[in-house]
Amino acid sequence: MRPNNKLSIISFVVLAFTLTAAVAGAQDPLPSWNDTASKKAIITFVGDVSREGSPNYVTPAERIATFDNDGTLWAEQPTYFQLIFALDRVKALAPKHPEWKEKEPFASLLKGDMKGVLAGGEKSIAEIMMVTHAGTTTAEFEKIVQDWIATAKHPKTGRLYTEMVYRPMLELLAYLRANGFKTYIVSGGGVEFMRPWAEKVYGIPPEQVIGSSIKTKFVLRDDKPVLVRLPEINFVDDGPGKPVGIQMQIGRRPVAAFGNSDGDLQMLQWTTAGSGPRFGLLVHHTDAEREWAYDRRSPIGKLDKALDEAQVKGWTVVDIKKDWKTIFAFQK
Amino acid sequence: MRPNNKLSIISFVVLAFTLTAAVAGAQDPLPSWNDTASKKAIITFVGDVSREGSPNYVTPAERIATFDNDGTLWAEQPTYFQLIFALDRVKALAPKHPEWKEKEPFASLLKGDMKGVLAGGEKSIAEIMMVTHAGTTTAEFEKIVQDWIATAKHPKTGRLYTEMVYRPMLELLAYLRANGFKTYIVSGGGVEFMRPWAEKVYGIPPEQVIGSSIKTKFVLRDDKPVLVRLPEINFVDDGPGKPVGIQMQIGRRPVAAFGNSDGDLQMLQWTTAGSGPRFGLLVHHTDAEREWAYDRRSPIGKLDKALDEAQVKGWTVVDIKKDWKTIFAFQK
Repeated sequence: MRPNNKLSIISFVVLAFTLTAAVAGAQDPLPSWNDTASKKAIITFVGDVSREGSPNYVTPAERIATFDNDGTLWAEQPTYFQLIFALDRVKALAPKHPEWKEKEPFASLLKGDMKGVLAGGEKSIAEIMMVTHAGTTTAEFEKIVQDWIATAKHPKTGRLYTEMVYRPMLELLAYLRANGFKTYIVSGGGVEFMRPWAEKVYGIPPEQVIGSSIKTKFVLRDDKPVLVRLPEINFVDDGPGKPVGIQMQIGRRPVAAFGNSDGDLQMLQWTTAGSGPRFGLLVHHTDAEREWAYDRRSPIGKLDKALDEAQVKGWTVVDIKKDWKTIFAFQK
Repeated sequence: MRPNNKLSIISFVVLAFTLTAAVAGAQDPLPSWNDTASKKAIITFVGDVSREGSPNYVTPAERIATFDNDGTLWAEQPTYFQLIFALDRVKALAPKHPEWKEKEPFASLLKGDMKGVLAGGEKSIAEIMMVTHAGTTTAEFEKIVQDWIATAKHPKTGRLYTEMVYRPMLELLAYLRANGFKTYIVSGGGVEFMRPWAEKVYGIPPEQVIGSSIKTKFVLRDDKPVLVRLPEINFVDDGPGKPVGIQMQIGRRPVAAFGNSDGDLQMLQWTTAGSGPRFGLLVHHTDAEREWAYDRRSPIGKLDKALDEAQVKGWTVVDIKKDWKTIFAFQK
C-alpha cells in the first residue's frame, strides 16, 4: 500500500470514530429513566464534573462512584439473595451433616420452618452464614457461588438472580464509566459472594468490589498455597463500616455515592461532605406493582433516617414508580 | 478550517504518534539494568504475556504485578523509613507529653538512647507506632506524612526518602504499565503512610496500595464526618498476610510479584503457583559500596528461606552489584 493510501485509510478511520462518537453523544444515555428531576440531576452532575473547562471539573483519577448492591443494583426482596444462597447451601451440605437433624437452627431450616430458624435471632443467622461461607478455600468458594448463581431462581419471578438487576442502574453504571468514572460496589454483602459474577453482570472487576468478609489464612497444602476461609468475621461493610471500607480499599473519597437504605447513610454523608461537586442518590422502592414498595418499617432495606437526611442535604431520591420506565434487566 | 485541512492535520498527528511509538519501541525500556540474565528474564516474560497471539498471552485485566516496598522499591537501611518517621514523630509530640520524660520507651528515645528503646522489645516498638500513628483523623495523618516526607532526610545520604527509591525499579514499573500491567504495592508498611506519596513517586494510585493498617472509626464531629485512627491493629500485611491482603483488595492472583525478603516469600509462592505464565523476582542486596549488602542474618529485610526457595522455583534473583547500572533515583 502506498503511504498516501495508508494515510487516507487512517483519516477515514479517525473520521468514522469522530462521527460515531458524535452520534453516540446525541443518544439518550439513560433510556430506561423517565425525563424527571432525578435523571436531570444525574446528567447535570456528570456533565459538570467531566467537561473540561467546567468550574466544577474533576480529574478522571478522582471520579470515583460507589454503589450499594442489595436494593440499589439488584433486588433484595423477599430477603437478601445471599441469605437464600446460605439456606440453599445448608440443604446441599445436609447429607454430610446428619447431626443437623437434631441441631438448631439447622433442624428447623431443613424442615422448611423459617419461623423456627428466626426464633434463634441473629445468632442463628450468623451460625448459618459461617457454616455455609467458611471452611473452604477461596477458589472452592468461588466455584460454589458460580454454580449457585448460574442456576438458582428467584422465588417470586422465577428468574436468575443476575437477571434481577435494575436496568436503569446498569445504564447509569455504563454512563458514568463512559464519562471517565471508576465504578465500585460498596456492599454489606460478602465480597467473595459478589466478585464471581460482578464483572459479567455489572462490568465491575473484582478489585472494585468492596464488601463484608470473613478472615482467611494462607496455608501450604502439599506445597500448594491456598487461602482457607475461617469462621470468623473480618469486616462488616455496612452503615459506618462503609466509609471505613472505602478508605481501606480505595484511599480516596468518592465524588458520587448511590444507595437505598439506612445502611448507606454514612457512605452518602462521607461522600457528599467532601469539597467540590458531590452527588448523593437514594433509590426509594415505591412500586409495589412492578417491584416492591418498602421503606421506613421494612426489616430488609430499611430507609428511614437516610430518607430524612436526603431532604436536608439535597440528595437525589429516585421514586421508582415515577422515575423508572423499566425495572429489571430481563424486561425489554 | 476546511475539512480537507482538518483531515490532513489529523493524519499528521496519527503519523507522528505512530513514528514516536516506533522510536520508543526501539529504545531500551530498562536503561539502568545491565544486560544480564535478570533483565533478559523480565523482558522475555513481559513480551510473552503481552504479545497478542503468544501462547502465553494474558488479558490486560489479569496483568497484575505486585511489589513489596521496603528494600524492593526504596531502601530500608539503616532501618525501615517508617520507623524513623515514628521516632521523629515522638520528638515532635514530646512537648505535649511531659510524662514521656519518665516513661519508657519514650524516655530513652528522647535521650537518643536507641538501645534503651530496643530493650523493651517488640512491645516498645508497638507502643511507639500506636502513639505516633493513631489518635488523628485520616486527613490529619495524611498531612503529617506529607509534611515529614517533604523535609526529612536520610541519615546516611542526606537525601529525601523519596529520592532513595531504586531507579531500575522505577523503570520496571513504567515498563510493566506500558505493557498493560496494573502495578500494586503490597507492603508490610502502613497503607496510610505510603499513599500520600506513592502516586507521585511510583505512579501508583492510592487504590493500588496495599499495606498494614490500624482500625479506623467513622465519627460525626459537629455534623462533619471524619475517620478517626484507633490504636488497634487491623491487618498485618507481611509474610503470610500478603496473599491475604492481595485477595482482600484485588481479588485476583497476580501474574508477577517482586520482593526482597522472607516477608515476601508467601506472596511469591501464591503468585507463581497460579496456572499459566508467572514471574517471581527477588532483589538481593549485594552492593555494600553503592548501597548495602545484607541477606540471611540481617535484622532488617532478612532474606534466607526465600533465597533458597528462589533456586528451587526458578525465581529471578537480582544481584544488585552485577545487575544494576545505577541504584538510586537521585543518581544520574
